[in-house]
Amino acid sequence: MPDTLSRTFSALADPTRRAMLARLSKGKANVSDLAKPFLKEMSLPAVTKHLKVLEKAGLITKTREAQWRPCELNGRGLKHAADWMEHYRQFWEESFDRLEAYLKTVTAKQKAQGKKSGRHA
Amino acid sequence: MPDTLSRTFSALADPTRRAMLARLSKGKANVSDLAKPFLKEMSLPAVTKHLKVLEKAGLITKTREAQWRPCELNGRGLKHAADWMEHYRQFWEESFDRLEAYLKTVTAKQKAQGKKSGRHA
Repeated sequence: MPDTLSRTFSALADPTRRAMLARLSKGKANVSDLAKPFLKEMSLPAVTKHLKVLEKAGLITKTREAQWRPCELNGRGLKHAADWMEHYRQFWEESFDRLEAYLKTVTAKQKAQGKKSGRHA
Repeated sequence: MPDTLSRTFSALADPTRRAMLARLSKGKANVSDLAKPFLKEMSLPAVTKHLKVLEKAGLITKTREAQWRPCELNGRGLKHAADWMEHYRQFWEESFDRLEAYLKTVTAKQKAQGKKSGRHA
């Protein structure tokens, strides 16, 4: 059985499942409402399979409201993955710093060359 | 072919690959050094396959230093996924706020009950 983090990342590795999470980020929804936008490209069982993957990964939960069982986004399921990511933040910030530094050098060189050619004219 | 985000999350959905990224977060390493801790549980081709998944997902890059080709963590590859996550931050923060509020209520009730039973004693 995969570990929790692997299950989370695996659940996120699909555009349909991410679209379902995006829908749920706007509020609770029941399965038929969630399924609607996808039924042109896939069957209802395929949709419910995706929902089960999200549920097993702890990314959504089925709540209970009278006889209605809407799905709800479970933010805590994402937190673990986000915490893992956070550890690597310095690396993308560093790489953008390097890019910025490089662009500054290029711009400075271009300015210097512009001045030079201006002097020669 | 999967989209970039799906490829990133899919690459992260494996403990060996995450361990490789953790190793690279400490500095560049060549393939044989990276492979070493895993060779007890898997073959060298299995290790290089994992590295290829990470490389295709843009999470590591092979640099060139003389005749040496060390692997390096590519933070920018993670940024896209982290940005996606960031959109959901409010949800885990909310769920912790809810938990905190619940715990406060429980503690307050317990205190009130403690006082009550104190009065009765």
